[in-house]
Amino acid sequence: MRIGELSRRTGVAVPTIKYYVREGLLPAGRLTSPNQADYDDSHIRRLRLIRGLMDVGGLSVSVVREVLAAVDAPEEPVHKVLGAAQEAITPPTVGEPDGLDEARRAVAEFIRRRGWRVDPGHVSAEALAVALATFRGIGHGAFEEVLDDYAVACERIAAADLAYVGRQVDVDSLVESVVVGTVLGDAVLSAMRRLAHVDGSARQYEG
Amino acid sequence: MRIGELSRRTGVAVPTIKYYVREGLLPAGRLTSPNQADYDDSHIRRLRLIRGLMDVGGLSVSVVREVLAAVDAPEEPVHKVLGAAQEAITPPTVGEPDGLDEARRAVAEFIRRRGWRVDPGHVSAEALAVALATFRGIGHGAFEEVLDDYAVACERIAAADLAYVGRQVDVDSLVESVVVGTVLGDAVLSAMRRLAHVDGSARQYEG
Repeated sequence: MRIGELSRRTGVAVPTIKYYVREGLLPAGRLTSPNQADYDDSHIRRLRLIRGLMDVGGLSVSVVREVLAAVDAPEEPVHKVLGAAQEAITPPTVGEPDGLDEARRAVAEFIRRRGWRVDPGHVSAEALAVALATFRGIGHGAFEEVLDDYAVACERIAAADLAYVGRQVDVDSLVESVVVGTVLGDAVLSAMRRLAHVDGSARQYEG
Repeated sequence: MRIGELSRRTGVAVPTIKYYVREGLLPAGRLTSPNQADYDDSHIRRLRLIRGLMDVGGLSVSVVREVLAAVDAPEEPVHKVLGAAQEAITPPTVGEPDGLDEARRAVAEFIRRRGWRVDPGHVSAEALAVALATFRGIGHGAFEEVLDDYAVACERIAAADLAYVGRQVDVDSLVESVVVGTVLGDAVLSAMRRLAHVDGSARQYEG
């Protein structure tokens, strides 16, 4: 199809499609003449993936580029590929709140207590430590009492996520499902947790 | 204390503190002379809350202003206040993916099936519908099979969150804990889910 049809079928404007090609997010179409290119269904799917990561996942162009590089080059063992894809889509933590070292030790102890096979230096362990130190700094350190409830819930969610990922038939789809499931899954989880709050609050306070 | 000490004790630069006062995020200090103001511990706590919402929660200055307005003016019944605080901190959805109406119907059916007391037009129900439509658009509609696992997990998390919120002794702390728990809780949940993924992946693929 021509770029105009690609634009119509995905709702992405032609200049934006050209921008994504220039930025290396979308493979160029097959040239059929010096100034005309042909696109296929793989471009439609990739464009929707790009927009999903940006609009729902809130990722920037440069992060989407890194994420797609992980999707496009899965050469390592599965566990390594998943780790790389996950690392690419995890935003770096901002700032160093007071008490970060103490919170890091609390996270390491939490990981040990749960028996999780995770390096305490993992980027998400660091993100958890920053969040905990921030809770403590604003006088809500007691929030840590709910951590084990969160952990049990996350173990259930992760098992469901991995079962979904494991149903993918090839490595490309596997990596794509990790990226999509992690980024869009965050959005699903955040929205659903708020709905569960509304429900719980209605039961508790409205009688 | 003077603004210099407030800056030292919170790690927030003096011009930034002045900016937050101008933007209405932080109450002005008590004037002790025409060009000198006095700050107290409430300013320290408020500044840490602002930085937590921005750095960990990723909120913008204007969203933080709305959120703090909810924290500062809790005059309505508790369930209403919680709803208003929650609405202020929930980012509006971006874009209208294909198949949004169908996804909205799926979300309404999901809410009905779970027996949740939630208006299907709730801002978070809309966010969930946008995420589901995006999943479908990129060929990952099968992800919906995990929704009930997510729901069970979210019910557990929401119960723990509400128990924590319910321990607050006054309405101010109650509303603050909702805001903090929702925004920073998202960060905790996102980080912890990724750690659970690493653990699950290690068990599944490393043997």
